[in-house]
Amino acid sequence: MISITIFGSGNVATHLIKAFSCKEEVSFLQVFARNKKELSTRFPHLNIVPSQEELVKTDVFILSVTDSAVEKVASSIPFKDSLIVHTSGSLSIEVLSNCDRRGVFYPLQTFSKERDVSWQNIPIAIETASQNDESILFFLAKLLSNKVYLISSQQRKQLHLAAVFVCNFVNHLYTIGHQLCEDHNIDVSLLQPLIEETAKKISMLSPKQAQTGPAKRNDTLIINSHLAMLENPIQKQIYTLLTQSIQQHEQKL
Amino acid sequence: MISITIFGSGNVATHLIKAFSCKEEVSFLQVFARNKKELSTRFPHLNIVPSQEELVKTDVFILSVTDSAVEKVASSIPFKDSLIVHTSGSLSIEVLSNCDRRGVFYPLQTFSKERDVSWQNIPIAIETASQNDESILFFLAKLLSNKVYLISSQQRKQLHLAAVFVCNFVNHLYTIGHQLCEDHNIDVSLLQPLIEETAKKISMLSPKQAQTGPAKRNDTLIINSHLAMLENPIQKQIYTLLTQSIQQHEQKL
Repeated sequence: MISITIFGSGNVATHLIKAFSCKEEVSFLQVFARNKKELSTRFPHLNIVPSQEELVKTDVFILSVTDSAVEKVASSIPFKDSLIVHTSGSLSIEVLSNCDRRGVFYPLQTFSKERDVSWQNIPIAIETASQNDESILFFLAKLLSNKVYLISSQQRKQLHLAAVFVCNFVNHLYTIGHQLCEDHNIDVSLLQPLIEETAKKISMLSPKQAQTGPAKRNDTLIINSHLAMLENPIQKQIYTLLTQSIQQHEQKL
Repeated sequence: MISITIFGSGNVATHLIKAFSCKEEVSFLQVFARNKKELSTRFPHLNIVPSQEELVKTDVFILSVTDSAVEKVASSIPFKDSLIVHTSGSLSIEVLSNCDRRGVFYPLQTFSKERDVSWQNIPIAIETASQNDESILFFLAKLLSNKVYLISSQQRKQLHLAAVFVCNFVNHLYTIGHQLCEDHNIDVSLLQPLIEETAKKISMLSPKQAQTGPAKRNDTLIINSHLAMLENPIQKQIYTLLTQSIQQHEQKL
């Protein structure tokens, strides 16, 4: 049995709270959030603490706050023999160097409050300063997911950068694709099977093998006609740059 | 019962041949391909015709050849009362204006020979010059898919452009994400649940609602640290441009 405190009320914090609040192995779940109202509407039975003075000691403190706040929040925790971890993809474990026992608990997924996720498939990257604490984070991560990995701060930073490309930037291309359809009265749901197949395809083929389209075929006629159709200057730039990048890759193959 | 000829041996042609060859409603399937060897290895029982002289008349001729060849191939078909259709997302139906009966049969999916697809969910956009021919293409499309749409040449062109963004360009971002992992000895399979969730998420939320990440949060610290990590100049440009485009969208919301 383990007691934990989660700091935060954002997307990641909300999903962690939801996931841990139904685990019997967690004896006590305390949440620290300045924005008490939204969380207590979502989780009416939750023990939410809005001020530092009311905080009680738990085995682990999970800081799921904005990157820029992690160091300050960590330093404000008065329980020096608890394990203090952050959930950031970008921050080194050393941002917690003021804490005697420190670690990282990074779930690699895109979280929005409005959408449930299937935790058991989410890779969780853990890291601890001391090997003794590794088993605690491993235990907590295994409560949620079948995929738990020991990843160094250096590797996690690279993983997070890769995630920005395959998730945040990809989602923005979905935004553009939807917008092009909406502008011409085409039901955006027509794109969905293509979008899902493109994502699934690379679990079997490498993305290099999976590449199709006018840029790969160097079909200048279509590329020029697409550029002429794009009215938005930044969309035109994105089209040009990604076409150029695909062609550079093809030349290397 | 309907007889069809498919021209071509590329990705789309191969998948169309495979799909139609097991349909009882297709009485006769003839394939015209100069590259007979590869197709006959893949489909040993197929009726493959390598030269124009051996071509026999069928109800429908489906031209699944490169865009630049469609017009010439169509003109070479001597059976003037057959329905002649192409499968291109970009070409207008009018590229077939030499054919008395003409149409378009455009399956909106990414096809690679090495990967099977689930035809029943693939949207097929059809278009015919004459309304009499619409029912024939509708019948053929319905043999393969539950999702058949009447789409004009103008709309299909926009749909194809949108598909380049949400499929070809997205796949290229997967290539970059995989490469960043491989360069730092991180198993690329860690990215797969994130990739698939990002794709599925927008069937429930709009991509604008689904957007997450440092660009959306305007997290300059992380953005700059990511740019410093990227060694490849074109990857740096892609990061900068997509970040800028996300931020422009956020300002409009």
